Amino acid sequence: MINPVIAEVTRGDIVESRHRGAYAVVDRAGHVVAAEGGIAAAVYPRSAIKAFQCLPVIESGAADHFGFTDEEIALCCSSHNGEPEHVRVARSMLAKGGNAESLYECGAHWPYFEEARFALVRHGEPCAAVHNNCSGKHAGMLALARQLGADPHGYVGLDHPVQQAIAKRIGELCDIDLSQQPVGVDGCSVPTWAIPLKNLALAFARFSDPQNKAARRIIEAVRAHPFMVAGTGDFDTLIMEAVPRLFIKTGAEGVYCAAIPHAGLGIALKVDDGAARAAEVGIAAVLAGLDVWTPEEKAALERFRHHDLANWRRIEVGEVRGLRL
Amino acid sequence: MINPVIAEVTRGDIVESRHRGAYAVVDRAGHVVAAEGGIAAAVYPRSAIKAFQCLPVIESGAADHFGFTDEEIALCCSSHNGEPEHVRVARSMLAKGGNAESLYECGAHWPYFEEARFALVRHGEPCAAVHNNCSGKHAGMLALARQLGADPHGYVGLDHPVQQAIAKRIGELCDIDLSQQPVGVDGCSVPTWAIPLKNLALAFARFSDPQNKAARRIIEAVRAHPFMVAGTGDFDTLIMEAVPRLFIKTGAEGVYCAAIPHAGLGIALKVDDGAARAAEVGIAAVLAGLDVWTPEEKAALERFRHHDLANWRRIEVGEVRGLRL
Repeated sequence: MINPVIAEVTRGDIVESRHRGAYAVVDRAGHVVAAEGGIAAAVYPRSAIKAFQCLPVIESGAADHFGFTDEEIALCCSSHNGEPEHVRVARSMLAKGGNAESLYECGAHWPYFEEARFALVRHGEPCAAVHNNCSGKHAGMLALARQLGADPHGYVGLDHPVQQAIAKRIGELCDIDLSQQPVGVDGCSVPTWAIPLKNLALAFARFSDPQNKAARRIIEAVRAHPFMVAGTGDFDTLIMEAVPRLFIKTGAEGVYCAAIPHAGLGIALKVDDGAARAAEVGIAAVLAGLDVWTPEEKAALERFRHHDLANWRRIEVGEVRGLRL
Repeated sequence: MINPVIAEVTRGDIVESRHRGAYAVVDRAGHVVAAEGGIAAAVYPRSAIKAFQCLPVIESGAADHFGFTDEEIALCCSSHNGEPEHVRVARSMLAKGGNAESLYECGAHWPYFEEARFALVRHGEPCAAVHNNCSGKHAGMLALARQLGADPHGYVGLDHPVQQAIAKRIGELCDIDLSQQPVGVDGCSVPTWAIPLKNLALAFARFSDPQNKAARRIIEAVRAHPFMVAGTGDFDTLIMEAVPRLFIKTGAEGVYCAAIPHAGLGIALKVDDGAARAAEVGIAAVLAGLDVWTPEEKAALERFRHHDLANWRRIEVGEVRGLRL
């Protein structure tokens, strides 16, 4: 099956580039409410399921035991910019869990946010694991290791109790036996299991069930602190600030997962070629097309469906837009 | 027509992302020697035809009049990294042409090369137009304006004598009336005309004709200074260092154009979704598949057809590879 074009980039009067992809919108009973493309194909959700990786941190009692705040729980579900506020909260999580920064196994990279990156360079400081966009998630995983009484060393390994606890929860939510699914190593070195879009969407519908207390705590934490999930100028932060009833998370290689708790819907989208620019406008197009919003929410989502493309002199040269299918 | 998958990205045991695209290989008589996908569709070549934009700089007599060296001619055809050597050569071209940096209309951006970018930040210097990857091309255009006796102000405009002289040469080489083609504004503010891949490939075959003296001068200049065309660690520099009989240039949004002068062939490739990673391994796959190389050249091209994908801890997690179609 060849997936449809879900986003395009124009320049002048023509389309310069096209992005294909697939998505599924599923309710809590597992009914496919809307879909395009091959939703049975397994895709790596990457960071789009950080909220699921955070569930055992709460359900194991680690979050309560170490006194994690809502801000910290939000950072645990984030792909953050490495801004000073993100780094501060990650360090607080480490300290509460009794974990040293040297235990991080996510690898170091420069903060995504230019101002934060340049501030380090100006002060002659190297980038560190705490600047890694996943450092909140990893601080949560290290706390989980402590709570489980496991050796924190090697916590990113497939067979480590931390990853096994996470795999169990993802499998339950997605209604799939993860041991039978392809597994890869993510950018931050933890396992990422390939899961059909349809099952990912189902999982987010289930995640949004108000009966799911740990999930409700996560959703409320993210709703209260959307900045923690991404950062200044980032799509996920901006769209959740504009539409607080939406729960959304990006993953590398063109993935988006979302939940609409008030409507009981879960959504999963993958851009075939992995482009983030297409995933952003594409998921906005899918969301804006659902009849579950107030007119104000719908108008806000519509604004995220397209944006101007400007060149180095800030001249408008084209547009990036998600398509209504 | 739906273009075939020409490159893919794996993670673990499965393909995570796929890139579609089209390419044409054409000889000097206009025969299509090899092709895949929709080669009649018009695409913006973007920076892939900087060598064509440089032709009038030579043919007008500007290059001789201002005494441009081979290094400077190579930079005129480049999308460079903004490394100190690139900046030095661009400034030399400006000085020789009697043009101030303030005449640049390409816009400023930080050097692509991290070390050069961080060096500016460390010294508290802002980025400037001379760091723009197109600053060599624009220095050539400003020299051309002087040579034509035209006002250098507004040299990026579609109706300016500089752009009209360039359009004439592109149209001749591509065998197409550019006034009838869609035109957009490029990242550096000059016009970019949409041209079918088949015509772009033909133009590069013609460009490689040894009878074309200005083109020969450009090819020899680039061959002598492949670093000037891109920079440290960049695909175009590395592949021409490895295979000096190849002339190649990338363009934004997944474009590659190339010439193989000894075989009289021109090649043009466009990745539908605009991804550079796919264009690189994709063009290498096309080139490696042509029977015009020594075994050593073929082996070198084959090495550019795929590369490991490493994560933040430099663990190998997958591969980016151009497909043999």
